[in-house]
Amino acid sequence: MRVATYVKPGGHANLKVVERPDPSPKAGEILVRVRASSLNFHDYAVIMGWLPVEDGRIPMSDGAGEVVAVGEGVKSFKVGDAALSLFFPRYVDGPPTGWKKLGVPGDHADGFAAEYVAAPESAFTRAPKGYSMAEAATLPCAALTAWNALFVATRIKPGDWVLTQGTGGVSIFALQFAKAAGARVIATSSSDAKLERLKALGADHLINYKSTPEWGKEAKRLTGGRGVDTVVEVGGPGTFAQSIFANRVGGHIGLIGVLTGMAGEVPTAALFSNSITVTGITVGSRQEQLDMIEAIEATGVRPVIDSTFSLEDIGKAFAHQESQKHFGKICLSI
Amino acid sequence: MRVATYVKPGGHANLKVVERPDPSPKAGEILVRVRASSLNFHDYAVIMGWLPVEDGRIPMSDGAGEVVAVGEGVKSFKVGDAALSLFFPRYVDGPPTGWKKLGVPGDHADGFAAEYVAAPESAFTRAPKGYSMAEAATLPCAALTAWNALFVATRIKPGDWVLTQGTGGVSIFALQFAKAAGARVIATSSSDAKLERLKALGADHLINYKSTPEWGKEAKRLTGGRGVDTVVEVGGPGTFAQSIFANRVGGHIGLIGVLTGMAGEVPTAALFSNSITVTGITVGSRQEQLDMIEAIEATGVRPVIDSTFSLEDIGKAFAHQESQKHFGKICLSI
Amino acid sequence: MRVATYVKPGGHANLKVVERPDPSPKAGEILVRVRASSLNFHDYAVIMGWLPVEDGRIPMSDGAGEVVAVGEGVKSFKVGDAALSLFFPRYVDGPPTGWKKLGVPGDHADGFAAEYVAAPESAFTRAPKGYSMAEAATLPCAALTAWNALFVATRIKPGDWVLTQGTGGVSIFALQFAKAAGARVIATSSSDAKLERLKALGADHLINYKSTPEWGKEAKRLTGGRGVDTVVEVGGPGTFAQSIFANRVGGHIGLIGVLTGMAGEVPTAALFSNSITVTGITVGSRQEQLDMIEAIEATGVRPVIDSTFSLEDIGKAFAHQESQKHFGKICLSI
Amino acid sequence: MRVATYVKPGGHANLKVVERPDPSPKAGEILVRVRASSLNFHDYAVIMGWLPVEDGRIPMSDGAGEVVAVGEGVKSFKVGDAALSLFFPRYVDGPPTGWKKLGVPGDHADGFAAEYVAAPESAFTRAPKGYSMAEAATLPCAALTAWNALFVATRIKPGDWVLTQGTGGVSIFALQFAKAAGARVIATSSSDAKLERLKALGADHLINYKSTPEWGKEAKRLTGGRGVDTVVEVGGPGTFAQSIFANRVGGHIGLIGVLTGMAGEVPTAALFSNSITVTGITVGSRQEQLDMIEAIEATGVRPVIDSTFSLEDIGKAFAHQESQKHFGKICLSI
Repeated sequence: MRVATYVKPGGHANLKVVERPDPSPKAGEILVRVRASSLNFHDYAVIMGWLPVEDGRIPMSDGAGEVVAVGEGVKSFKVGDAALSLFFPRYVDGPPTGWKKLGVPGDHADGFAAEYVAAPESAFTRAPKGYSMAEAATLPCAALTAWNALFVATRIKPGDWVLTQGTGGVSIFALQFAKAAGARVIATSSSDAKLERLKALGADHLINYKSTPEWGKEAKRLTGGRGVDTVVEVGGPGTFAQSIFANRVGGHIGLIGVLTGMAGEVPTAALFSNSITVTGITVGSRQEQLDMIEAIEATGVRPVIDSTFSLEDIGKAFAHQESQKHFGKICLSI
Repeated sequence: MRVATYVKPGGHANLKVVERPDPSPKAGEILVRVRASSLNFHDYAVIMGWLPVEDGRIPMSDGAGEVVAVGEGVKSFKVGDAALSLFFPRYVDGPPTGWKKLGVPGDHADGFAAEYVAAPESAFTRAPKGYSMAEAATLPCAALTAWNALFVATRIKPGDWVLTQGTGGVSIFALQFAKAAGARVIATSSSDAKLERLKALGADHLINYKSTPEWGKEAKRLTGGRGVDTVVEVGGPGTFAQSIFANRVGGHIGLIGVLTGMAGEVPTAALFSNSITVTGITVGSRQEQLDMIEAIEATGVRPVIDSTFSLEDIGKAFAHQESQKHFGKICLSI
Repeated sequence: MRVATYVKPGGHANLKVVERPDPSPKAGEILVRVRASSLNFHDYAVIMGWLPVEDGRIPMSDGAGEVVAVGEGVKSFKVGDAALSLFFPRYVDGPPTGWKKLGVPGDHADGFAAEYVAAPESAFTRAPKGYSMAEAATLPCAALTAWNALFVATRIKPGDWVLTQGTGGVSIFALQFAKAAGARVIATSSSDAKLERLKALGADHLINYKSTPEWGKEAKRLTGGRGVDTVVEVGGPGTFAQSIFANRVGGHIGLIGVLTGMAGEVPTAALFSNSITVTGITVGSRQEQLDMIEAIEATGVRPVIDSTFSLEDIGKAFAHQESQKHFGKICLSI
Repeated sequence: MRVATYVKPGGHANLKVVERPDPSPKAGEILVRVRASSLNFHDYAVIMGWLPVEDGRIPMSDGAGEVVAVGEGVKSFKVGDAALSLFFPRYVDGPPTGWKKLGVPGDHADGFAAEYVAAPESAFTRAPKGYSMAEAATLPCAALTAWNALFVATRIKPGDWVLTQGTGGVSIFALQFAKAAGARVIATSSSDAKLERLKALGADHLINYKSTPEWGKEAKRLTGGRGVDTVVEVGGPGTFAQSIFANRVGGHIGLIGVLTGMAGEVPTAALFSNSITVTGITVGSRQEQLDMIEAIEATGVRPVIDSTFSLEDIGKAFAHQESQKHFGKICLSI
């Protein structure tokens, strides 16, 4: 089978497509013919060499495909079923238990930039009914992170105000899920054209954070001075202060991102005096993915796919991601 | 001013419309020209004499009107504002604190079957923008109970299954709020015609509980065998067992009703072995009413009004409620 | 090895001790030399034939022993370690997921009335430091149920009032855990002698429910009229009404028991109007057992062991349980 | 009556003790003969002129005394009762609602550095039985903040690990409450002598943060590598990073302090990747104070009082606070 591999010292120009032996499923495993994957910031960190990933690793945490063989004792899948990967294949349910033990595909173990993957049946869920393989492949990392931010770390209710940042995968899913749950969304971007697209997806208010650098205060103003109930904070230290200023007393910030760095100045006194809660959000559990799939089927949310690249063009896909010109998810067709 | 009064020994034929002196607002109070009220089971229990209510009491817990005068020191209302009553005028925020201290209008204190009411400003909230007075008057008891059942006692998320019972005010609000929150609804009724109307309001599945007495099991089957996430249980002991059978492992039942009695046989072993949680739901707090109004404005939910009666016809309104022919809320125009 | 087995038509006189081949650990399994077990109501229901258990089943859900061999790939245990069984060997973490899939030892699978048990390492946890084997064997069903009732289904805080019923294993653990958490305990029993022993274990108030049949109201009175924060309800339908009357507005009842039957009359209106929450409690997860062990080590709680029987005398042990004369846990030494 | 007043430009040397007319209680108010107050960092910020407090303000948020007169309609107090002040006199129950509207004594309104205070009965609670006036006066700000950090913002359970910082009032109450709840405490200080006193109060482990600047990692090591469940973070930006390193995956930090500044460098990536939750803690509600008093009575926790100054020596009391030599609470006797 053909696979893409990470080659040191990293960078998308260094990704190679090579031949590997086809895997076969052991007891309890299913063999999946991977049809699609999607790019996340985590995958980008892997292929850039920022994480301690071994040479020759097959990247990509997300994968969707169909089951072509099942090992002995497999109960939840049969040949022909659609299978969707999990970001944390061993995180079944309950609160977070940490990354190290969790075998993230494309990082701690080979991932889905491959024609075939054999893994335990518990490392997959079903895919949403009516979704294409590419649509399904957008879910395990980005959509589940957005889901966790809105329905696990906090739990929004109709009428709540949600602030989303930019037009990456997590943020667009957060906008869509928030609207499907009856919430109101303030969406930000540095591009007026992208803001128009966010409006078409249901955003109630738009802020261009380039022309409004104090966008946190502007967001608070848009809520009538009360502040938003939750921020899906993907920027990290560079945006955290404005997220705090946007927040209501007793509000919530789902802290996801490292886009602007690993550490930075935070106005802790404002956090404290406004009784704000911040939760670090790291994707989610198998049960949460199942819950999200139910929600997708109930509400009809469909992923926004920016573009699709072939496995051979995986390097170009990451170059496109790097350019920050995308709106929504970049996919691989395999 | 004209008011309706409760006259012992109770019953809707015994309600009298009489003249009372116009009230005037003391310090901290607002004077409201009541324009509408709506009927709840609690009001029915009052006028039937089932609660220890004193003779001459003005009934009706719900009221909406406009502010016509404000007492000294009033800050949150001005003349001309719409004002919406609270079922528990002294329950500001936080968990339930019990009925006795809470001064329910129409029960512990005079209610809204009156042209004018003077009461502390804290006993009112604003009304949803764009709502008629009658629409607003449907909210304080029935809608807030439904809100509490879905977003306070438990907190549904998109994709959850909600079961509603019948076509009273609480149940229809629960259906509407659940759909606005991205949930799936199984609605029951004894009338196929009413079921069609529930479908038009968004119900995903319908069960005629007359022709399907084991409707709990049928509901579980409709969810693929998993069971519903929450039941808005308005029936009481006569329906509780089926609500348990409809529930998923670890599911929830919001226990509201006394329609079928004050006590009855409950399959406690099924409750226990399925790890079900039951919460008694008693309307809600001022903050919850404000949250609900935000949700109504964000989602566009509008009450289903069955019919509207004049203050003089308050007895006929209750007779209509008693007939169980209504679908949604019965209102008074005052 | 010697094992005890369930023989139809059930009853403790029918338990047989027989020879079986020694098991050996497969990959991922550990072999445990069982040293102790303890009796629970669930075990009693098994050996009486009330559950659909197959003939020849080895009963007993609880077991503690030392690891004498480990299968390939075992990581969390080594030879010589103490191992403690799980009531639900496949329930890792998160909310309850139902009994059927969970392989309860002594019911859905062979249990711990055996000299040796081989099972996956994930079906065991460590035992508390400093505990004897018999003490450890009291924990997996009874103590974890009490833990769940106080710290999972609800979460008591210092100063809360907890009501416990009688002197079975769950109730005594609940009393001990509640006191270790800074709560106040009202303990009930039908025996003044047993009440004195409950007092010695820390109970703040005692009620003889035989001489005070309205013990729920008496409990409420003892709290100054406010009511208790939670009841660890092991009785079932026969005690549920008094548990409701004992509860505060917005309080909690952990519903565990079927001691007085599978169904019964419940004053649902009192549940509803006092905003009480009832949760069905079914033992707990592996993570909860680990949390409980940490708590035991931090607080020094030690089980109350009523008596210890040999494996040969397992029938006598159940006869003693049936007599209701015990105070605390009945153990088997194997 | 004699009162102390804040005189611009601030500083403890500038506090003046002056005569003011005795207040008298209006309708709904009680008149309290203040007997004790206690010093908090908030009071220090007031008297130093760091907050926009008006000249002539009577400082001190905390006060305990006895009721000497009651206004018309007062129901919850009678002459002779002990009364304990509230940090937020208008925050009854529920989640935080913000500082501005809350009338903090000694800041937004005159405080308790006065022989008499007249205020609404709802601005006070009862004091714990058996407490001296000075002991009671330590509670409203410092103890309630510690209570909130352990039982409201998160809810510790027996066996949890709690980390406290230093020997100020909040930290010592947190240590005492955590031990009373069955938790394990790691306490830090820069003084070995103070660490010994923390040990005597029940601390399980001690870290001198001067000699161990990487005390967060040391704390994690002391828990066997798992990390603590919650940190009562009173330091602010200067200690926040180590608090994050001390935390377990999915752990909690109660962010209280501004002792080391209003903003600073935070390792947001570590917060994010360890799924940590941070909550800003701002004292608490009236209901929480009542809950805490119940807990104090149930567990026998007693405040650690460092020293007591007369009203005349209020400046010396603040100078002592500034010297950082105290251990526990500094009180005023009035």
